Amino acid sequence: MTTTTKIKTDIEIAQETKLKRIQDIASELDLLEEELEPYGHYKAKISLHALKRLATKQDGHVILVTSINPTPAGEGKSTVTVGLGQALHKLGKKVMIAMREPSLGPTMGIKGGATGGGYSQVLPMEDINLHFTGDLHAITTANNALAALIDNHIHQGNELRIDTRRIVWKRAVDLNDRALRKVVVGLGGPTQGVPREDGFDITVASEIMAVFCLATDLQDLKRRLANMVVAYNVDRQPVTVADLGVEGALTLLLKDALKPNLVQTVEHVPALVHGGPFANIAHGCNSVIATKMAQKLGDYVVTEAGFGADLGAEKFLHIKARMGGIEPKAVVIVATIRALKMHGGVGKQQLASENVEALKKGLANLEKHIETIQAFGLPFVVAINRFITDTDKEIHALTTFCEEKGYPVSLTEVWEKGGDGGIDLARKVLEAIENTKSTYTPLYELDEPITDKIQKIARIVYGASDVSFSDKAKKQIEQFTSFGWDKFPICMAKTQYSLSDDPTKLGRPTDFTITVRELKPSIGAGFLVALTGDVMTMPGLPKQPAALQMDVDELGNARGLF
Amino acid sequence: MTTTTKIKTDIEIAQETKLKRIQDIASELDLLEEELEPYGHYKAKISLHALKRLATKQDGHVILVTSINPTPAGEGKSTVTVGLGQALHKLGKKVMIAMREPSLGPTMGIKGGATGGGYSQVLPMEDINLHFTGDLHAITTANNALAALIDNHIHQGNELRIDTRRIVWKRAVDLNDRALRKVVVGLGGPTQGVPREDGFDITVASEIMAVFCLATDLQDLKRRLANMVVAYNVDRQPVTVADLGVEGALTLLLKDALKPNLVQTVEHVPALVHGGPFANIAHGCNSVIATKMAQKLGDYVVTEAGFGADLGAEKFLHIKARMGGIEPKAVVIVATIRALKMHGGVGKQQLASENVEALKKGLANLEKHIETIQAFGLPFVVAINRFITDTDKEIHALTTFCEEKGYPVSLTEVWEKGGDGGIDLARKVLEAIENTKSTYTPLYELDEPITDKIQKIARIVYGASDVSFSDKAKKQIEQFTSFGWDKFPICMAKTQYSLSDDPTKLGRPTDFTITVRELKPSIGAGFLVALTGDVMTMPGLPKQPAALQMDVDELGNARGLF
Repeated sequence: MTTTTKIKTDIEIAQETKLKRIQDIASELDLLEEELEPYGHYKAKISLHALKRLATKQDGHVILVTSINPTPAGEGKSTVTVGLGQALHKLGKKVMIAMREPSLGPTMGIKGGATGGGYSQVLPMEDINLHFTGDLHAITTANNALAALIDNHIHQGNELRIDTRRIVWKRAVDLNDRALRKVVVGLGGPTQGVPREDGFDITVASEIMAVFCLATDLQDLKRRLANMVVAYNVDRQPVTVADLGVEGALTLLLKDALKPNLVQTVEHVPALVHGGPFANIAHGCNSVIATKMAQKLGDYVVTEAGFGADLGAEKFLHIKARMGGIEPKAVVIVATIRALKMHGGVGKQQLASENVEALKKGLANLEKHIETIQAFGLPFVVAINRFITDTDKEIHALTTFCEEKGYPVSLTEVWEKGGDGGIDLARKVLEAIENTKSTYTPLYELDEPITDKIQKIARIVYGASDVSFSDKAKKQIEQFTSFGWDKFPICMAKTQYSLSDDPTKLGRPTDFTITVRELKPSIGAGFLVALTGDVMTMPGLPKQPAALQMDVDELGNARGLF
Repeated sequence: MTTTTKIKTDIEIAQETKLKRIQDIASELDLLEEELEPYGHYKAKISLHALKRLATKQDGHVILVTSINPTPAGEGKSTVTVGLGQALHKLGKKVMIAMREPSLGPTMGIKGGATGGGYSQVLPMEDINLHFTGDLHAITTANNALAALIDNHIHQGNELRIDTRRIVWKRAVDLNDRALRKVVVGLGGPTQGVPREDGFDITVASEIMAVFCLATDLQDLKRRLANMVVAYNVDRQPVTVADLGVEGALTLLLKDALKPNLVQTVEHVPALVHGGPFANIAHGCNSVIATKMAQKLGDYVVTEAGFGADLGAEKFLHIKARMGGIEPKAVVIVATIRALKMHGGVGKQQLASENVEALKKGLANLEKHIETIQAFGLPFVVAINRFITDTDKEIHALTTFCEEKGYPVSLTEVWEKGGDGGIDLARKVLEAIENTKSTYTPLYELDEPITDKIQKIARIVYGASDVSFSDKAKKQIEQFTSFGWDKFPICMAKTQYSLSDDPTKLGRPTDFTITVRELKPSIGAGFLVALTGDVMTMPGLPKQPAALQMDVDELGNARGLF
């Protein structure tokens, strides 16, 4: 872009795009008319019957987009995901994009969408960033219906002998609301229920969101919901949704939400936007059902996982890939010059200034993530997500490094140019898929002891020298093993800013220990969360929330979204 | 029906009905293709542009369906509303039905839908009774976003000097959850907000629901939202949404929900199902926008108001009609033999047995509601909603009473026979509209003092001899008058089971006093709630909630809804 042109905002680009009717987007896919359930003119849900009908069809190739440890602004994974999809489409490939759906909390809190940016967005961004097709509301409702049913069970006699001090099921809102983190409910006397401590998580941190995203069909969803542990009884034995007998009701509340949502990109490439679990307390990927549906509808599927490769890609490969039978054929590792300079020691305020030395120092972070993807046996391409402040010297330093090491690398300009800005990346990804025999190998087996699984992730993926388990964690591991919960994969909850569990250790830290403070069983989702440091499951609003700018104009158009 | 035929359940009838595509339902209405926003194949939202486009078109005649004081099972107003609409359609009239949308709380709590029954239902009942098009979720979200913004304002410095003991804005869930009635939020130390007492209402009791249902367009919605009082400051002055500056964000969250929802009845008659405020703390009618849209799309509009004529019809006529400019041309007063016998002194267990004497005694209740409708200057027809247990003698006694008094009466069998069961009612309603010059007259003027308005409702509508105001209420009336809030209509919160404020006083009580305990300003909605006795704004779940029966079968169909 020339410096004299005013740079358009994401919402301006979005609102200037003439969308195609969703039926027209769908008509190019192998879908029957009755399998498409339109929600307005530009969104649709796809019936799960399509998955059954296409069961014997060859699955499309999955391309996983991940990144280095990001800056707080993110590396632009969603933008690269959409841009790469658009580029593959331009190359004549039948492509589908599969992405997470955003939470309202961040939308109303801090400016910044989750639908890509510039000319690489999924649209209609206003709808997707607000209520969309109601999936998150359905999950919130199921979550809170379960909470109400638990409290009602206790109020009505507590046949299951639930220990009211040991209820682990929390309530949820899809908002940033710090005042709900710790609450006391059931106050007001004997007709208002039983008083107890409680708390609210943001919906995307709820176990139901993780369950929803890992379920392979409606019956699997019901089975997983039934397995969720909501409390412990007075004998310290787990109490599940099945014990309460309400897995049917929860499944009913989620049956429509479970159908993936079809939308389009700025360049009218079909995208499934479905499910969006947190990448700390959960696994941070869109739904298994959306990815599998995308594999049936496209020859190539571009999808992403939250945070850097140490968190998102690791979880995609150890949790989602295993549970869903989804093995990526290639990985794209997104890096920005800005983030690499940050890893080389440059402060936030100086990231816009050229600093080749810092950049070179920061490359160690990229290299560690490349090694991780290689350890999983997968081919990869490094995608440089170009920013306006990047200098030619900086870009040259990065590409030279990759070329010398033999790492495939591509400079992408998908924010500014849409698919055209990702053609080279697309060609290199196709090459990687065609030329390399993918040999996806998990780094641990499910039947290894819990501690071994965590050790392997920490040592191989993070480069840690050891893992230290708190006394509490040790006790829990013993207890979980006695409950038969030791065969689950591990979902690490760790800062996204560092390979270590200390967000200030940038670059490629060495000689560090990961401390596992506590574990949290997500038995419905089917993983054990290992918590290192504090994990935020309910964000707060900033002093000037984005909500203050949000409005509707006289024609009914969204304003101030970002 | 013969006694040898198995009676089908509502959900069986609903699931056996072959629905028409919503586009086909809409094609018979004066709507442009782009004004219809489909939600799946059988639901659609109608763009508010249609209202503007059709602004100069003659409005259809509104027929208001109300009832006598009901039994706890209800009098079947929704069933008669749908049945009457179907009957008018059979008579060749261009008819629209306008109804409230149900809350999930009761659906998951106590069996019993809000979509009519038998062959007079709106469909798809499973969708309408579950998430429908997400309107209630949007309202819940707006409600809770506002709560989060209030608590965040206080946490971030409390520039508006809100008295944390005098925050009147409560949080909401669309569920029955007694444990949330009284809570303490903001616990956990200085980073978790400011601790304070709080509570949750069911969404349908939220002021936003009332605002939503009384708004005439998007700008009016925003104006009303801005006016909502959320707290009082340390000087005891009201703090509004406008003071917080977030009416734009709340409007944005509600902009799609505000479009009315088009569905169809068992007999494919178009129905708008939109908005559903409580009939105690709010005015108990579907949205003004839906009724006005129905008036533009149909020559006749059949609509209902919650509870008996003392509550729903009174509020429809004093609040909704005045604010929306919607004057009904005729009123249908639904009565059941069972309820009349109850008003005549028969206990719940004996309602199935013939008892003509008790029935005759109970007619006094019907007569009082007829007098009320006459006081409003409106023509009416009494609709007997026939039950299988009604005997010919009982029906004869009721029709004879009406004929002797000159009250138009019709025996309806719309549950069993659909529109065919309401042809006679439809003819009599048409006659009432054609032969009577409607002279709708409110029973009080808005500029009368608050106490006078309440006195008139109590004396004319309830038949009370006086109104007693508690000291608190007196003080509030003084205060509200000083704030300039004395020009609003009154929204009475009173038991639905009796004309008095004592639910045990059945029939037509005389010589009683109505006690106004407290007032609650709903400044955004634009009315003052006068509370007589306790008002439940958050129901609880029963020992065996309906949720225990809810499920999804292997084909993905809802089971156990009712």
